[in-house]
Amino acid sequence: MRVITIFAILGLSLMSGRSMGAQAPSLADILAGSPATDWRRLDPENTLYLDFVGGRVIIELAPTFAPAHVANIKALARAHFYDGLSIVRVQDNYVVQWGDAEAKRPLGNGRRTLKAEFSHTITRSDRFDPLPDPDTYAPAVGFSAGFPAAMDPAHWETWLTHCYGMVGAGRDNDADSGGGAELYAVIGQAPRQLDRNVTLVGRVVKGIERLSALPRGTGDLGFYKTAPERIPIRAITVAADLPVDQRVPLEALRTDSATFAAVLRNRRFRKDDWYKVPAGRIDVCNVTPPVREALRP
Amino acid sequence: MRVITIFAILGLSLMSGRSMGAQAPSLADILAGSPATDWRRLDPENTLYLDFVGGRVIIELAPTFAPAHVANIKALARAHFYDGLSIVRVQDNYVVQWGDAEAKRPLGNGRRTLKAEFSHTITRSDRFDPLPDPDTYAPAVGFSAGFPAAMDPAHWETWLTHCYGMVGAGRDNDADSGGGAELYAVIGQAPRQLDRNVTLVGRVVKGIERLSALPRGTGDLGFYKTAPERIPIRAITVAADLPVDQRVPLEALRTDSATFAAVLRNRRFRKDDWYKVPAGRIDVCNVTPPVREALRP
Repeated sequence: MRVITIFAILGLSLMSGRSMGAQAPSLADILAGSPATDWRRLDPENTLYLDFVGGRVIIELAPTFAPAHVANIKALARAHFYDGLSIVRVQDNYVVQWGDAEAKRPLGNGRRTLKAEFSHTITRSDRFDPLPDPDTYAPAVGFSAGFPAAMDPAHWETWLTHCYGMVGAGRDNDADSGGGAELYAVIGQAPRQLDRNVTLVGRVVKGIERLSALPRGTGDLGFYKTAPERIPIRAITVAADLPVDQRVPLEALRTDSATFAAVLRNRRFRKDDWYKVPAGRIDVCNVTPPVREALRP
Repeated sequence: MRVITIFAILGLSLMSGRSMGAQAPSLADILAGSPATDWRRLDPENTLYLDFVGGRVIIELAPTFAPAHVANIKALARAHFYDGLSIVRVQDNYVVQWGDAEAKRPLGNGRRTLKAEFSHTITRSDRFDPLPDPDTYAPAVGFSAGFPAAMDPAHWETWLTHCYGMVGAGRDNDADSGGGAELYAVIGQAPRQLDRNVTLVGRVVKGIERLSALPRGTGDLGFYKTAPERIPIRAITVAADLPVDQRVPLEALRTDSATFAAVLRNRRFRKDDWYKVPAGRIDVCNVTPPVREALRP
């Protein structure tokens, strides 16, 4: 399988253009040399296309962590619930939010509210690959099912972490008042205080910059003050509902692969000429599992 | 002193508009009830106005941490070195960068390169107020001279941390190849791996959203591919060089004040109806020292 584009570029150095003599494999080298088996095709049944005037944003859903919310969001998408709704909020260094602010649209087979899925007990079949570095918020952090996640080994509890690009289901004060009719994506410093307080449902794997560069709302909490400021959503579509040749064939690096372990080493130690004091550490939100477009089969 | 605007809004909850019954003083209450002595006027001699088509961005410089760079940047500003230069790079979830990409402009009394000021040995007169929570990257983190900072108590070494809105001096491979002719501001997840690898010179205290919402560059590392995409800088001005009535009278909450301690408690424990599992922790980059506009004297 040949690779034609790499979408998720990890944080790169503040070079002003001069060449950098590599002393260890570069990130690009690591990815270019990776075996095809270290990558997984995104499941079109758990991939959403959010299309709006700014282009397409692609979201990978996380059924392992939020099965009921994922099922509900797909039911809502299939009922065309989101089509014609708007992006209603862009709060700098925090979130972009979209959905049914007036709670008036028909839900089809979907539901407006669901029992929260903030965390779950890890099972034998769940894989959790921890990072060795301390975390401010959780006893352990790492990657699970391709997503950044945290774990409390004392209770075998695991949950997704609010990193840049993660997508969650907004709610009111009641823990069970969310469900996916209102969704948000993180566009700033990871608001980890939200972990286990909101149900995270997936992450943006392509096009986050189409959301993060939107005009900030000037109302309270970054809401757009007037209806004309809102940005209409053309449609949210489950990729599986499109003919194969209309899907974007994305694949993600397996977070349990040797290649991803090499990526983490690269990001932790930065063995190149530019870095003088390599951190030797990495925050779970400072390394994004790479996603790329594969040639169509 | 009456307060008319609060600029730096800390991360707020994902409410969809309903009221929230407070069980503990809210952040707004804490700030509204704070004594005037807990605030400090920004020193106009260490305040920069970056004016461009998108409006004004205000930067507080950090002479405690980077005295030579701060002096040099002011000399460059006073030589009108920056006026007419451009924003040349906007990399999503990373940095906005501006300056003299072609290294051709006259420097006045300024210099193009300086010895790095990545960290310094803390002195008796430096105050460092640590956070109690663990940090991924440093032995201790907290606030010093109003800025987010880290410390290694084993060597009494202290340095500024790459949080959202922090401003640094881009450099090439040589540690001493920066100086302030190229500057960047962080607009994404804190790239803490840069700590002690680049000289940080201050932080954006007003208008970061004017930078963070700019169109992303489509070239390598987020550089704009063509000259017309670049965004011209009208001028960078030292506030002290303007008549008093043309300055923006900003004040920052002292990070060694009782009010800021209350802000930190509020952010760590979030005792309100919305949060179900308060983190009880805070990342040094997840709380921004509040800055507000005071009435003119």
